[in-house]
Amino acid sequence: MTRIAVVGAAGYTALEVIKILIRHPGAEIVAVTDRHDGRPHVGAIHPSLNGRLDLCVENLTPAEVAARAECVFLCLPHGVSSSMVPSLLDGGTRIVDFSADYRLNDPEVFATWYDQKHPDPDRLGKVVYGLPELFRDGIADAPLVANPGCFPTTSSLALAPLLKAGLIQPTGIIVDSKTGVSGAGRTPKLMTHYPECNESMCAYNLGRHRHTPEMEQILSTVSGEKVELIFSPHLVPMDRGILTTTYSLPTGEVTEEKLLDTLREFYADEPFVRVVDHLPATKDSTGTNFCDITARIVRDRVLTISCIDNLIKGASGAAVQNFNLMFGYPETTAF
Amino acid sequence: MTRIAVVGAAGYTALEVIKILIRHPGAEIVAVTDRHDGRPHVGAIHPSLNGRLDLCVENLTPAEVAARAECVFLCLPHGVSSSMVPSLLDGGTRIVDFSADYRLNDPEVFATWYDQKHPDPDRLGKVVYGLPELFRDGIADAPLVANPGCFPTTSSLALAPLLKAGLIQPTGIIVDSKTGVSGAGRTPKLMTHYPECNESMCAYNLGRHRHTPEMEQILSTVSGEKVELIFSPHLVPMDRGILTTTYSLPTGEVTEEKLLDTLREFYADEPFVRVVDHLPATKDSTGTNFCDITARIVRDRVLTISCIDNLIKGASGAAVQNFNLMFGYPETTAF
Amino acid sequence: MTRIAVVGAAGYTALEVIKILIRHPGAEIVAVTDRHDGRPHVGAIHPSLNGRLDLCVENLTPAEVAARAECVFLCLPHGVSSSMVPSLLDGGTRIVDFSADYRLNDPEVFATWYDQKHPDPDRLGKVVYGLPELFRDGIADAPLVANPGCFPTTSSLALAPLLKAGLIQPTGIIVDSKTGVSGAGRTPKLMTHYPECNESMCAYNLGRHRHTPEMEQILSTVSGEKVELIFSPHLVPMDRGILTTTYSLPTGEVTEEKLLDTLREFYADEPFVRVVDHLPATKDSTGTNFCDITARIVRDRVLTISCIDNLIKGASGAAVQNFNLMFGYPETTAF
Amino acid sequence: MTRIAVVGAAGYTALEVIKILIRHPGAEIVAVTDRHDGRPHVGAIHPSLNGRLDLCVENLTPAEVAARAECVFLCLPHGVSSSMVPSLLDGGTRIVDFSADYRLNDPEVFATWYDQKHPDPDRLGKVVYGLPELFRDGIADAPLVANPGCFPTTSSLALAPLLKAGLIQPTGIIVDSKTGVSGAGRTPKLMTHYPECNESMCAYNLGRHRHTPEMEQILSTVSGEKVELIFSPHLVPMDRGILTTTYSLPTGEVTEEKLLDTLREFYADEPFVRVVDHLPATKDSTGTNFCDITARIVRDRVLTISCIDNLIKGASGAAVQNFNLMFGYPETTAF
Repeated sequence: MTRIAVVGAAGYTALEVIKILIRHPGAEIVAVTDRHDGRPHVGAIHPSLNGRLDLCVENLTPAEVAARAECVFLCLPHGVSSSMVPSLLDGGTRIVDFSADYRLNDPEVFATWYDQKHPDPDRLGKVVYGLPELFRDGIADAPLVANPGCFPTTSSLALAPLLKAGLIQPTGIIVDSKTGVSGAGRTPKLMTHYPECNESMCAYNLGRHRHTPEMEQILSTVSGEKVELIFSPHLVPMDRGILTTTYSLPTGEVTEEKLLDTLREFYADEPFVRVVDHLPATKDSTGTNFCDITARIVRDRVLTISCIDNLIKGASGAAVQNFNLMFGYPETTAF
Repeated sequence: MTRIAVVGAAGYTALEVIKILIRHPGAEIVAVTDRHDGRPHVGAIHPSLNGRLDLCVENLTPAEVAARAECVFLCLPHGVSSSMVPSLLDGGTRIVDFSADYRLNDPEVFATWYDQKHPDPDRLGKVVYGLPELFRDGIADAPLVANPGCFPTTSSLALAPLLKAGLIQPTGIIVDSKTGVSGAGRTPKLMTHYPECNESMCAYNLGRHRHTPEMEQILSTVSGEKVELIFSPHLVPMDRGILTTTYSLPTGEVTEEKLLDTLREFYADEPFVRVVDHLPATKDSTGTNFCDITARIVRDRVLTISCIDNLIKGASGAAVQNFNLMFGYPETTAF
Repeated sequence: MTRIAVVGAAGYTALEVIKILIRHPGAEIVAVTDRHDGRPHVGAIHPSLNGRLDLCVENLTPAEVAARAECVFLCLPHGVSSSMVPSLLDGGTRIVDFSADYRLNDPEVFATWYDQKHPDPDRLGKVVYGLPELFRDGIADAPLVANPGCFPTTSSLALAPLLKAGLIQPTGIIVDSKTGVSGAGRTPKLMTHYPECNESMCAYNLGRHRHTPEMEQILSTVSGEKVELIFSPHLVPMDRGILTTTYSLPTGEVTEEKLLDTLREFYADEPFVRVVDHLPATKDSTGTNFCDITARIVRDRVLTISCIDNLIKGASGAAVQNFNLMFGYPETTAF
Repeated sequence: MTRIAVVGAAGYTALEVIKILIRHPGAEIVAVTDRHDGRPHVGAIHPSLNGRLDLCVENLTPAEVAARAECVFLCLPHGVSSSMVPSLLDGGTRIVDFSADYRLNDPEVFATWYDQKHPDPDRLGKVVYGLPELFRDGIADAPLVANPGCFPTTSSLALAPLLKAGLIQPTGIIVDSKTGVSGAGRTPKLMTHYPECNESMCAYNLGRHRHTPEMEQILSTVSGEKVELIFSPHLVPMDRGILTTTYSLPTGEVTEEKLLDTLREFYADEPFVRVVDHLPATKDSTGTNFCDITARIVRDRVLTISCIDNLIKGASGAAVQNFNLMFGYPETTAF
């Protein structure tokens, strides 16, 4: 049994990670924390947890968390995570960090995209990016894993094998993503107010979304070439799911068969990637830790279509997958 | 041309009233006000109005509004409306008030249900309730019209004819209503945050909803008997629409045919009530000022099913219907 | 390991039962059947099953099914189920039947509500109704279990304890239910065509819904009194979830506290019923086998509000719960 | 008053065109036809029309239609339209054709994309494409107008000005479109069955969608260059709205300001195009005949984002706009 704390319990990723861990035979949730006054029952924050987890939400210091838990799922926004990570690590606990704080290697890049100096810059570049399909080796022994962003997961899993195989050009890649609303978090805002976003679609943060440098870093690392892409996120009226359509130029002659074979071979042993012939719908992977991927060629352009549940493979499922690797459980445990 | 001001411009009812008035050949919108700093264009508040209404949202006093407009659509919450009504009336403008402030006749009842003393109690009981199908006579000359609540519109239009005809008993009536989310207004809250209320349904304010005394007052007035009902509102994941199912006891033998005939006769000359044989869907009336009504008998219980677009017949459409009556336009103008 | 066949594999209840059984440590799915030509992979029928269940959909006779499986989940429509049940039982397999064919005790009642003579009338009245919270005793040894209807589950679980305790009157009960669209099955129809039912709500089958006699039979059995109710189902634009609001008359003085205590006591040892103080939302139980129940008193009328996931506790989850009881697994296995 | 027939009355585009024409002071609907047996009231087919249009749906021959109407709105699928057009024209009526039959100039291209020989090839190339913003001149006197496809409207209105001004390259243009489900028509299919497409997103017909040659033809005509594009339609869980994101290469140095100025100038006098600075949401144009357009530059790539209501500006609104031009009404009449 591994003792686990979930920090930042009020949000959707915390809820999902708790739901998955409840099913995990090796996980024992020993603390659920948030900055609440008082000690509300988790069921008061997340009614769906009534009768499933009998804990109160506590307001603990990093030291208190570290004293209690062997592993922390840190479900905090960027900037806040990095203020807790050093003391948690000092306390001897291991961390799966949901924020973007340790995903980028370069403090300059972080400062540019996140409009703030990185509070813990020396650690950058030494933290493994927790996408097991691409970086499994570094995860097992890592004290701190940077859990991937939801958009980078869909695009990177689709593009990495093709870039690595040299089938597509590393620049000018277009990543057109469509996400469900839960990706925006649980804090009410006008943009995510039901009558505003229901029955509507829009693009947002065009060219300015913070997942852009994350995708470029991952794909550059994997391919060994400087990858540059145009990223366009869109908000779709559904709870969950990301569908990402990418467009890139082939490096030479290539067929759909070759693309699909390359993907299939790359993911042959992966339990959570399904390379499919049909055009996948997000609903096929909703509630699962799967990423569905296919590829097409249209007018000499290479298209990939990939989708995930943004809260599972795009966040909490990936986190448990990382946890399994870190603590020696079979990677598919609890799924 | 009648000069019109829309006060409280940021909400959904204001948006809808503006959209209807844009089509009205006799209406000229001369002011749109709200408590904004600065003078944003209406298109900045409601992007759908770009290219349709070229006005800035101003922060005007009641006196300034009255100086400019012959009619004010007062799209304000309860408690706020009544703080402006006296000075607007003093300024000589006529008012369609969207709030609940002048719907109830009895200041005690208001105080009980709204948890506050009524700020303008002397006017209560002298203001016409703006449901033309039941109270048309008083509207034409009224300086101030209390625009009906959305739930009371569906239930009252369905029940009033049956009560008046003595076909159903006035007590123990059950009103089970289901509303789209726009009825909750435009202020972001957790309950109306997309991932919370999408793909979900719940009852709320059971037995405590403020439309209860409003329904009872209307129906008592119309029937001449003390009506008492149990009102259960439910929140449904859709933008618009209210469906109300009522259950009451017949006073004697009655057939579905008799019920439908009574309704048909009552509304024979009404342009905005459709008595239908089939079970209506809210979508049939979405975007229109219609109320669809039918009736059934199940196990000696009388059922009515009625539906409206909560923002049109349930708010802004009813307001323009009232405006038409007040200013001598054909009642169906702009619809 | 218990060998399982899922018959009628193309629908939503089959999909859900498969998803739950995949997680069941004691279940081995050995056959998935439907009337397809050819032998498509289950992933071709349900793309979400790709990579999770590697079976082809076969067109097997009851005898072939019985030869292979110890337990059959019979996901067939009424009328079809009863044509297969006798030969399956003869073949020695045990059955959880999702249809309505064996839920009613009286062939006359079946004929009245289902417009057809019952094809296997002698068995009626001897089949246990698979709602473990009310009829657990008969399930463990049953060769055939009639899995409950989705609406009866919500209403019966809410009303049975109150009726049994004599707190509410057995007649004149109003059951106003709201269901997500998946309850209508997977066959495309105009009523469930997306642009028809999205952003819309309607009542349907008022007073004629076939779950009416089912509810009455269960509640009469449990309470020992002849229960009579008015049942109104409504269609809500969401995938899943049923919310049922009931209205009944108390037999005497009663408080909300007394109602809630009665419910809590009744379900004290039940793993899948949560008696809650708050008004539950369907989303709280989506994806789970829970039924959430609360009670209120409004104007001397007793209200219950209960909700479930119509495909889980309302169908496939209940079926696996029954399976667990039938084959000696802990009742909560796989949830 | 112009006498109008709506042919193919059961679908969504017919419903919308009727709703708009009801408001048109110069239009009189004299016939509504479909292949129904009997003569159902339009309200039986479209309940929302009850009380708004008192006509029965008739099964008329082209000659009978032509005898009655001066203008026909032909709401039929491709292949069927062209079987009626010749006789309607012979009968002296003018036509707005909603199908794709007369949109393409080249019978070969039609045959390639629509998998059938064109039944009326001689007329191809002589029919005006009814997108007034680009081809207004030819519409006023046209006997037959080919009403544009919904996707081509969004993409062409966004790209045409930039291509014509030589700001972007004519090849390699990526058109990533997202559409609401009503675009798929009113015939129930599994893909548009509510529980299948709700809470889900997918790409479909990648590289094979029939609107591709239509877009290329329009844009080539307008720009005088051979335009080639990659078109990816996606299905989004909402009733209405198309959002199109395009990606193209600039021909030289260009700024966002220059792009927006070019669009603004091009559409300066257009009543139904709004060039906006913000990123538009489909909801802003839902229920209107507007097309909202903006442009961005991301990493030297030119992006346009445009949206419409697929049933209004993408179909029935455009048709009435064409009708207004054809019959000498102000272009904005009825909107």
